[in-house]
Amino acid sequence: MIIIMEPKATDIQIKKVMDFLSANGFETRFNRGEVYAVIDAIGDKTTVTPNRISAFDGVREVKIIREPFRLASRDRKPDDTVIEFSNGVKIGGGNKPVVMAGPCSVEDNYDGLLSVAVAAKECGCEFLRGGAFKPRTSPYDFQGYGEKALKSLRKAADETGLLTVSEIMDASDIDMMCDYVDVLQIGARNVQNFKLLHAVGKCNKPVILKRGLASTIREFLLAAEHILYNGNSKVILCERGIRSFDSAFTRNVMDIASIPVIKKYSHLPIILDPSHGTGERYLIEPMAKAGLVVGADGVMIEVHHDPENALSDGKQSLPIPMFKDVMKRVNRLSGRLHYERNCLSANVD
Amino acid sequence: MIIIMEPKATDIQIKKVMDFLSANGFETRFNRGEVYAVIDAIGDKTTVTPNRISAFDGVREVKIIREPFRLASRDRKPDDTVIEFSNGVKIGGGNKPVVMAGPCSVEDNYDGLLSVAVAAKECGCEFLRGGAFKPRTSPYDFQGYGEKALKSLRKAADETGLLTVSEIMDASDIDMMCDYVDVLQIGARNVQNFKLLHAVGKCNKPVILKRGLASTIREFLLAAEHILYNGNSKVILCERGIRSFDSAFTRNVMDIASIPVIKKYSHLPIILDPSHGTGERYLIEPMAKAGLVVGADGVMIEVHHDPENALSDGKQSLPIPMFKDVMKRVNRLSGRLHYERNCLSANVD
Amino acid sequence: MIIIMEPKATDIQIKKVMDFLSANGFETRFNRGEVYAVIDAIGDKTTVTPNRISAFDGVREVKIIREPFRLASRDRKPDDTVIEFSNGVKIGGGNKPVVMAGPCSVEDNYDGLLSVAVAAKECGCEFLRGGAFKPRTSPYDFQGYGEKALKSLRKAADETGLLTVSEIMDASDIDMMCDYVDVLQIGARNVQNFKLLHAVGKCNKPVILKRGLASTIREFLLAAEHILYNGNSKVILCERGIRSFDSAFTRNVMDIASIPVIKKYSHLPIILDPSHGTGERYLIEPMAKAGLVVGADGVMIEVHHDPENALSDGKQSLPIPMFKDVMKRVNRLSGRLHYERNCLSANVD
Amino acid sequence: MIIIMEPKATDIQIKKVMDFLSANGFETRFNRGEVYAVIDAIGDKTTVTPNRISAFDGVREVKIIREPFRLASRDRKPDDTVIEFSNGVKIGGGNKPVVMAGPCSVEDNYDGLLSVAVAAKECGCEFLRGGAFKPRTSPYDFQGYGEKALKSLRKAADETGLLTVSEIMDASDIDMMCDYVDVLQIGARNVQNFKLLHAVGKCNKPVILKRGLASTIREFLLAAEHILYNGNSKVILCERGIRSFDSAFTRNVMDIASIPVIKKYSHLPIILDPSHGTGERYLIEPMAKAGLVVGADGVMIEVHHDPENALSDGKQSLPIPMFKDVMKRVNRLSGRLHYERNCLSANVD
Repeated sequence: MIIIMEPKATDIQIKKVMDFLSANGFETRFNRGEVYAVIDAIGDKTTVTPNRISAFDGVREVKIIREPFRLASRDRKPDDTVIEFSNGVKIGGGNKPVVMAGPCSVEDNYDGLLSVAVAAKECGCEFLRGGAFKPRTSPYDFQGYGEKALKSLRKAADETGLLTVSEIMDASDIDMMCDYVDVLQIGARNVQNFKLLHAVGKCNKPVILKRGLASTIREFLLAAEHILYNGNSKVILCERGIRSFDSAFTRNVMDIASIPVIKKYSHLPIILDPSHGTGERYLIEPMAKAGLVVGADGVMIEVHHDPENALSDGKQSLPIPMFKDVMKRVNRLSGRLHYERNCLSANVD
Repeated sequence: MIIIMEPKATDIQIKKVMDFLSANGFETRFNRGEVYAVIDAIGDKTTVTPNRISAFDGVREVKIIREPFRLASRDRKPDDTVIEFSNGVKIGGGNKPVVMAGPCSVEDNYDGLLSVAVAAKECGCEFLRGGAFKPRTSPYDFQGYGEKALKSLRKAADETGLLTVSEIMDASDIDMMCDYVDVLQIGARNVQNFKLLHAVGKCNKPVILKRGLASTIREFLLAAEHILYNGNSKVILCERGIRSFDSAFTRNVMDIASIPVIKKYSHLPIILDPSHGTGERYLIEPMAKAGLVVGADGVMIEVHHDPENALSDGKQSLPIPMFKDVMKRVNRLSGRLHYERNCLSANVD
Repeated sequence: MIIIMEPKATDIQIKKVMDFLSANGFETRFNRGEVYAVIDAIGDKTTVTPNRISAFDGVREVKIIREPFRLASRDRKPDDTVIEFSNGVKIGGGNKPVVMAGPCSVEDNYDGLLSVAVAAKECGCEFLRGGAFKPRTSPYDFQGYGEKALKSLRKAADETGLLTVSEIMDASDIDMMCDYVDVLQIGARNVQNFKLLHAVGKCNKPVILKRGLASTIREFLLAAEHILYNGNSKVILCERGIRSFDSAFTRNVMDIASIPVIKKYSHLPIILDPSHGTGERYLIEPMAKAGLVVGADGVMIEVHHDPENALSDGKQSLPIPMFKDVMKRVNRLSGRLHYERNCLSANVD
Repeated sequence: MIIIMEPKATDIQIKKVMDFLSANGFETRFNRGEVYAVIDAIGDKTTVTPNRISAFDGVREVKIIREPFRLASRDRKPDDTVIEFSNGVKIGGGNKPVVMAGPCSVEDNYDGLLSVAVAAKECGCEFLRGGAFKPRTSPYDFQGYGEKALKSLRKAADETGLLTVSEIMDASDIDMMCDYVDVLQIGARNVQNFKLLHAVGKCNKPVILKRGLASTIREFLLAAEHILYNGNSKVILCERGIRSFDSAFTRNVMDIASIPVIKKYSHLPIILDPSHGTGERYLIEPMAKAGLVVGADGVMIEVHHDPENALSDGKQSLPIPMFKDVMKRVNRLSGRLHYERNCLSANVD
């Protein structure tokens, strides 16, 4: 931690900061520049956070040296985290990228859902996704069918041999949900719902944590840290677009670079969700490919048996025939990348 | 609702959209321009939302005419909402702006808290604020003292004749919290935690709803709509800064213009929080004044008896003597504005 | 400057950086923490910029201690810059805030322009503003009447005893423009048009520099630095709104806090432009007041004799009667603030 | 164009708007909804822009139906624009993506530059890029060697059989620059420097137009429209990252989705610049691939013979050996995509 003092900071103010740091086990060094005095402090930021220091009179700014996330950091754990499921599916660590497909919301039409599941299985997907509880900006939008939806999701997944993913919105639903889903998902709007992060941190289901619309990469990894810190190491990050100044053509801006950035700074697997990330059907394929080519561990794709009559997000859902077509090319790219990473890179390059 | 079709949209696609709208009670009109076909649809958007329509093949874009919030809208309820407390304090409707002061977190030092409460009362504040549950970006930061903190808050408020405000983070705490606080606060990070919005919507305590870091004004009012729709009409909005590309000098950018914008489009009262909005002690006074001068119904100010030793947000808290100094000038401005609005505007102008 | 090395940085890489710094006259100190090695470098950043250092292998990040603007910095020049005009008008340094009023574009109607100038003078404004060259997003929008417009502007200002302000878009126009205007304005879109900054830096007319839509405060002050560095010290900054994720109700978000921030870090005067900052007529008055109350040295207001027929920006222009009304209240606030700052603060507080 | 009137708009106000539209050749239709009155106007927006209408009293909002760019629009010109050079190189229209490589600035070391050119040629690149005039945020940064640099660039390109690209910053340099470069580049900071856009619009060199840090896609295409409208149809767009709230790990956020979006709405070729887009050497390869996989027509890559001693942007430049390595994989992907698009898609899918 580097503490920059105001030009007018008094010796007493400087001493107060240094004494406080020493009293908390920090080693300190003092440098006086032409204008500013600077204190270097080496020690454990879990006991004294930068925010504490910046409250002292005479402190202009505190700069951190070490990233504030620890359990999520690759510095601590250089090897990729790999999450393995009972059926042998693995996420992360250079394993073949997974695909999670399904409708935004599980609706009141089991046959429709099943037809999506069958198509997903056929195309080599590993997960059936579908919402039972829907966070909706407007109270006038459809809010989800709850446990009934989870039952259908489980049934369709079991019939086809898929794993299930669904979003949790309330800590009190956790036990019920764990009966039906293989992966709990925390939505973008709950990325800093700490009660929920702590709750999923205390269970041992894998958790997909979606990046918030306004989450910096650092905050995103700190949100994951809340889960890890509470005991659950099976966290899968998900890039799904961030808010920008331009929403005329895409709902959000997908920060594709965040995938290799996070791969550098963290050992956690990361997938992407081009359906929510763009809000546009025609952008799902290109953005899925963009994510895979930069190293994503999986893709989440919205598919609906009848998007024009979907109760939510039909605009960004693929109809089944288009989904099959897209998957043909996504699988080809995915296979190619896997081959290059695992075979070619070892020999040819 | 205006539906713009793709240039290549077929007659069948256009018909499908129009039939669906008619079947749902919308009156439709069709205009064909040089490039685009456009459908005007007049009807009730609570039954068919724009998202539904945009999922139809051939639809390029759906533009809304009417704002999607209804209960929060001034179109429906032209008069300002005024929230009155048992002790006669009123928020909104041209009443004198209120001031809510207190520490970010209620800590383990009752005398310190009481000294803040005494100062707040002396300066004419109406509310004592203080956190018991703290949403913290990092799991290594202080998370609040829970119910114990609420007890202290209530006691200090009662001793000094103030009302209490504290943040709720979990729907399951609602009954417990209502025993201690006069106003529940929903923090910026929970602005789209719909479970929590619904829970506070079902109680009848006044609720301060903070704007999210990435909430548009429309989404902010829709979040309020979730509370109103669940039955609680006592919503106080709070502008507390939005995320921007520049956080070098201020944590967030305060969108001061959102205050008169919201006054135009909604009847709900709105206050501002310059402490969180800027993250800088020296900006509290100017930004509080900026909010008041554009019509805010109140200000929330962080005050701590010893900011250098605060467990959270000391940097943006005023020490008591500085707070008293600031309040002298804030009260002068506030009184002046109140006088001008209520007396001068009627006569002189 | 603080140089943080990658955890895997080799001793040779570290030595290379330190040698380079020493060779360029920096004093260096080396600290090795648990994970990172850190180099403190004290010296002259005009010879070696942080960008140079960050290119070295093994460097993770370079953090600056001292703000990169120098001539614009209050550290170097603690007293406010005051710009004085031949007729005695002064901007900055606690002088009474100035008002610059006039149409977005000077059009082909001299009487209309004159009526605005007369109203401006009547209301106590000091400057008549009006565009001769208009930067327009679309080539199909009106681009300005050029020198002819400047002639009208000068004439209307001379008839009424006002000073003139107009935007320069091309360095080659500078001599011609200086014949007509008392203040050159550089628009938001040209804030990093360095050729233009250098050109106005070499003349000695006062310059209003508008903040760019995506300028950080630091970049804004560095743009001013380009002018100062080229020899012109008469720079007036202008906050006019920044781009945010929400443009549904206001074109931009006005960063009102930037005014007191800039006052703290720089000695340059700063005004605000609520017309462009919000794009909405009804927000001009509240935002002008918000700017004044936080310490702005002036306000720029668009006024048109017939906004419904304005060739540009009619939506954000005040018609003359509304302008007079607004000015009554703006002047009252302005006078009050001036009185409090200069009289009251000295005695009563 | 759709004009939404305020709920309180009077019949006279509505009539005034409709009369004005009719007088300007628009066909109008009037719809009165429950709350708002809406006017549909069909006609030529080059004569009456939405801004003109929004200035009328009683108008709440004007929504455009048709995109305001025309010459850049695919509606008008469905076929891809292909730009062909004298040596047969083509950009756009499904031709093999081009690569433009070279140093940020051309420095005072011809051998270094030549070694980059040789490597670029070897790797199959088509263009040598290098700056002669550098837009630099700070006046203390290196500003470029001007014409001398262009001479070196031309010479190195001629020796190796490459085309040249360099940035123009001032309209007055245009003739001189055209002697040395095959493609003029307009930088992100000049994207709305309309004088410059008009100047390059009047010459017939191909122009790379970089997206501004805060340009929406619409504004970006309107900036291109300024060039097209002035007569130059050889415009190559360039995505190079936009400003976001997170610049801790990447300088900008690359909006990869903008590439397929622009391909849908415009016929102009588009390339990407991952060096400036991310500011990080290790992200050049993944982001270049992401751009190619979504359909970019080319990539611009910064390469320096000695990045640690580069006078500008060394951090984001590849050293030659790393560049060769990256190009091996970029070429493999590029070739593969080209094969799939042109052969496979026709037969197999």
